Amino acid sequence: MKVLIIGGGGFVGQKLARSLVARGQLDGQAIQSISLVDVVMPASIESAAIAVNSSVCDITDPASIANALDASVTHIFLLAAIVSAHAEEDFDAGMQINMQGVWNVLERARALGSVPKVIFTSSIAVYGGEVPDPITDHSFLNPQGSYGIQKAIGELLLNDYSRKGFVDGRGFRLPTISVRPGKPNRAASSFMSSILREPLNGESAVCPVDDDFLHYYLSPRKCVENLIKGAELAAADLGQNRCMLMPGKTWSIGQLIEALTAVAGPGPAQLIRRESQPDIQRIVKGWRFDFHADKALALGLSADESFQDNVRYYLEDDAPVS
Amino acid sequence: MKVLIIGGGGFVGQKLARSLVARGQLDGQAIQSISLVDVVMPASIESAAIAVNSSVCDITDPASIANALDASVTHIFLLAAIVSAHAEEDFDAGMQINMQGVWNVLERARALGSVPKVIFTSSIAVYGGEVPDPITDHSFLNPQGSYGIQKAIGELLLNDYSRKGFVDGRGFRLPTISVRPGKPNRAASSFMSSILREPLNGESAVCPVDDDFLHYYLSPRKCVENLIKGAELAAADLGQNRCMLMPGKTWSIGQLIEALTAVAGPGPAQLIRRESQPDIQRIVKGWRFDFHADKALALGLSADESFQDNVRYYLEDDAPVS
Ligand SMILES: NC(=O)c1ccc[n+]([C@@H]2O[C@H](COP(=O)([O-])OP(=O)(O)OC[C@H]3O[C@@H](n4cnc5c(N)ncnc54)[C@H](O)[C@@H]3O)[C@@H](O)[C@H]2O)c1
Ligand SMILES: NC(=O)c1ccc[n+]([C@@H]2O[C@H](COP(=O)([O-])OP(=O)(O)OC[C@H]3O[C@@H](n4cnc5c(N)ncnc54)[C@H](O)[C@@H]3O)[C@@H](O)[C@H]2O)c1
Repeated sequence: MKVLIIGGGGFVGQKLARSLVARGQLDGQAIQSISLVDVVMPASIESAAIAVNSSVCDITDPASIANALDASVTHIFLLAAIVSAHAEEDFDAGMQINMQGVWNVLERARALGSVPKVIFTSSIAVYGGEVPDPITDHSFLNPQGSYGIQKAIGELLLNDYSRKGFVDGRGFRLPTISVRPGKPNRAASSFMSSILREPLNGESAVCPVDDDFLHYYLSPRKCVENLIKGAELAAADLGQNRCMLMPGKTWSIGQLIEALTAVAGPGPAQLIRRESQPDIQRIVKGWRFDFHADKALALGLSADESFQDNVRYYLEDDAPVS
Repeated sequence: MKVLIIGGGGFVGQKLARSLVARGQLDGQAIQSISLVDVVMPASIESAAIAVNSSVCDITDPASIANALDASVTHIFLLAAIVSAHAEEDFDAGMQINMQGVWNVLERARALGSVPKVIFTSSIAVYGGEVPDPITDHSFLNPQGSYGIQKAIGELLLNDYSRKGFVDGRGFRLPTISVRPGKPNRAASSFMSSILREPLNGESAVCPVDDDFLHYYLSPRKCVENLIKGAELAAADLGQNRCMLMPGKTWSIGQLIEALTAVAGPGPAQLIRRESQPDIQRIVKGWRFDFHADKALALGLSADESFQDNVRYYLEDDAPVS
């Protein structure tokens, strides 16, 4: 097994690589090598048993992909993307990276003829508009942003390249990943990690929505587990659609804060400052939260048991050692 | 109003042009000119009042589109495509024409900044797979062929270019158009026009499926009417999704033949030869027929009253004068 992680310098890519190194095998066979490629040189990862290498690759450039992807690669995790706010601001960059870039990777795989597995990260941002609740695997994709459109197009391409036998694709619509480590970013969803992460690190954070605000979450640990399970699914079990919701759970802000307190005591929650932010509210209140990931659940993917797990995983996996 | 019909040499494009010439106006204003462009030089159309011109344009070539489309164009009917069997056989041609070509046209419109109306012809081939009946405007698009994938991507692009204010798009998923004039083609659906058209012209035709085979149809006349109505819809009435099913009606083969006999007497039906064709059956039995075009119906688009209309329209509009 030779694994290529495209976007391997990113948050999910780095965690996935560490997890694959720890497992040592994929699809029932030993992993020989893991290549992390990204438009920014990925941080290197320590491994005794497996050759892990990092290099630069820009998926908007077919020649750069050809350098990174040869016929010996058995599994491609296609994670490279720019996120929603960025794709909305810079329309051309979003189209080139999130749409054309995905097409470029699939075209390279097709040219090789080696039919690698391609594990693609879509997003719940493909849902939106006037589609009735609940949102299921059979709901119309009506993205209300360029990022979601680009992800939906990536799914369609992945499906057809799989149907034609050019790749063995599987795509997963990721919930919002929380608790995400690191710094807040400019995404409207940033507070959904900040209000937990910063207080756990003894810092204050702003919560811009009410306690009853509902959203669909998954921990980074479960996300990586699901991507690996997704890679190992038998093609025959995927049916006529290679893309599906990744299981998550819907929680209110109140439930997030209860979980924080249950795991870490009453201190951290007192560091959350309430500050109604109409700009943020306008965006996030348009998002969907009533998701039913039936297909993935039936195939053995799973969500966190309770949000207390999300908090615990952050403390175990990511919290700065103080 | 300056109208550009891309794919204007095709079956729908030619009928649309004639209909626009006869109307003389669009969106409440006089039509100044109609430009028919196509990769094959479109047949010219007689018009006393309106300047109608034909030229060659290949939508896979941005420079060729730039020649055909300038900022004075107010309405673009984007019909150019290769059909399902062709796109399935020649994957690259399908991707270049049906996907990249649509993107090229939208990019040209965006560069102009003139926000033309773009009326796009999608297809019921975007539906398929494991999505439950009935198929509505909120059903997941799960095309089981490259043509359908490319049309679904065209829809997503049209939606986002509209949301961003680059064009004022509206897309319609066309039912199978019957009775289509001309010769049989290699499409699996070809018999759905042949078994009516050939007998009406005194020739024999083969019906490869049973009397109870159900399918979703619309006459060419209604299709053109709906495209013009679709062009005239107010953007504000389209909501968060610019693409919708075009109304059609579901009929059995038995009902088609009854309608033929009701309009033309018992003679023609006797020219239909029954010949079970497993290859054709395998394809067409995978197609969906339980469609509910609620959105378009609410917006004033419509289907034929009865299949007798389809037969009559063929005799009035298309049958060779004998
Ligand atoms: N984290 C979430 O909450 C979430 C939710 C839904 C979907 N996703 C998707 O999951 C994937 C991973 O997300 P993440 O949180 O790790 O994002 P991230 O931004 O941390 O990682 C994405 C990586 O892609 C790289 N990249 C950008 N342009 C590139 C290019 N042209 N060529 C090569 N690499 C390029 C970036 O440098 C970055 O390292 C992405 O596809 C994202 O859209 C994430
Ligand atoms: N007729 C139907 O039953 C039906 C059903 C569903 C959807 N549609 C769609 O409706 C539209 C019109 O269908 P039609 O029946 O008139 O098809 P058609 O094949 O008669 O016309 C399509 C035209 O596009 C032109 N074309 C192909 N490649 C081109 C290119 N690169 N640049 C410019 N022009 C190019 C062709 O030369 C042709 O004249 C198409 O988009 C088709 O996919 C038709």
